[in-house]
Amino acid sequence: MGVLIVEHKLGFIHANAGIDRSNIDQEKDIVLLLPKDPDLSAKKLSESLSKHFKKNISVIITDTMGRPFRNGIVGFTIGSHNIECLIDERGNKDLYGNTLKFTQIAIADELAAASSLLMGQAAQKKPVVLISGYKFMQSDTANAKTLIRSEEEDLFR
Amino acid sequence: MGVLIVEHKLGFIHANAGIDRSNIDQEKDIVLLLPKDPDLSAKKLSESLSKHFKKNISVIITDTMGRPFRNGIVGFTIGSHNIECLIDERGNKDLYGNTLKFTQIAIADELAAASSLLMGQAAQKKPVVLISGYKFMQSDTANAKTLIRSEEEDLFR
Repeated sequence: MGVLIVEHKLGFIHANAGIDRSNIDQEKDIVLLLPKDPDLSAKKLSESLSKHFKKNISVIITDTMGRPFRNGIVGFTIGSHNIECLIDERGNKDLYGNTLKFTQIAIADELAAASSLLMGQAAQKKPVVLISGYKFMQSDTANAKTLIRSEEEDLFR
Repeated sequence: MGVLIVEHKLGFIHANAGIDRSNIDQEKDIVLLLPKDPDLSAKKLSESLSKHFKKNISVIITDTMGRPFRNGIVGFTIGSHNIECLIDERGNKDLYGNTLKFTQIAIADELAAASSLLMGQAAQKKPVVLISGYKFMQSDTANAKTLIRSEEEDLFR
């Protein structure tokens, strides 16, 4: 079995990753790349969708990935606009009044995983999922780069 | 910053993991451990809930974890009963009729991530989430151990 550990130039590190040739016409000499700047793509989508629908629409761009130590791929966020991808619970109290010291939740990745359940990976033809009713924090400056662990904080390199 | 890579005896490998002391009374000399056999716990819950509600209820037991290479914790599945945790798309066709060669989807982890959004990590008091309307494959024999990559297939050790 040939396997690879791949670091994309955008910073994503995956197991068994490569350039995608599914859901394209393989008779043609083309491959499917990630967006050059997924956060910028999300920003453009957010701005044009918000204008078109006259609502404040935040955008997450997702992909699926293989993970270290676990089988199967899951959806995760590669680009975002106008949503805090990490929710910081540090300093908040738990049920017993204990202060939470470490907890940051990658809610953008959890939303990506949830939407991936609906989008599917084969011939479902569902590239867009509308998430409504989830209370998230909007942010002009936050983006999906906050989800990538910096090299100096990375235990696994 | 003190950090740890931890392998639990159940096989889970996490970043910045440890024994949980949140959402318990820290005045008392106690800690919060994982179930000894999460799949067995899920089986017991599934059987008693199915009997009580006279429906066929599958169960996923979730925890949140820190991940290699990415910031923030996400929900994932530590135990399950009567649900195929991995959906195998290998051999299925994509939009262009290409046969998918590699795709296995960790839907139990995606469901865990989705439910984690609703459960929260602090004082939300929501330990159970009911998932309905999602078409999954039932299985008497499948369990959450299928989500843990075997040591010989693991690229990151």
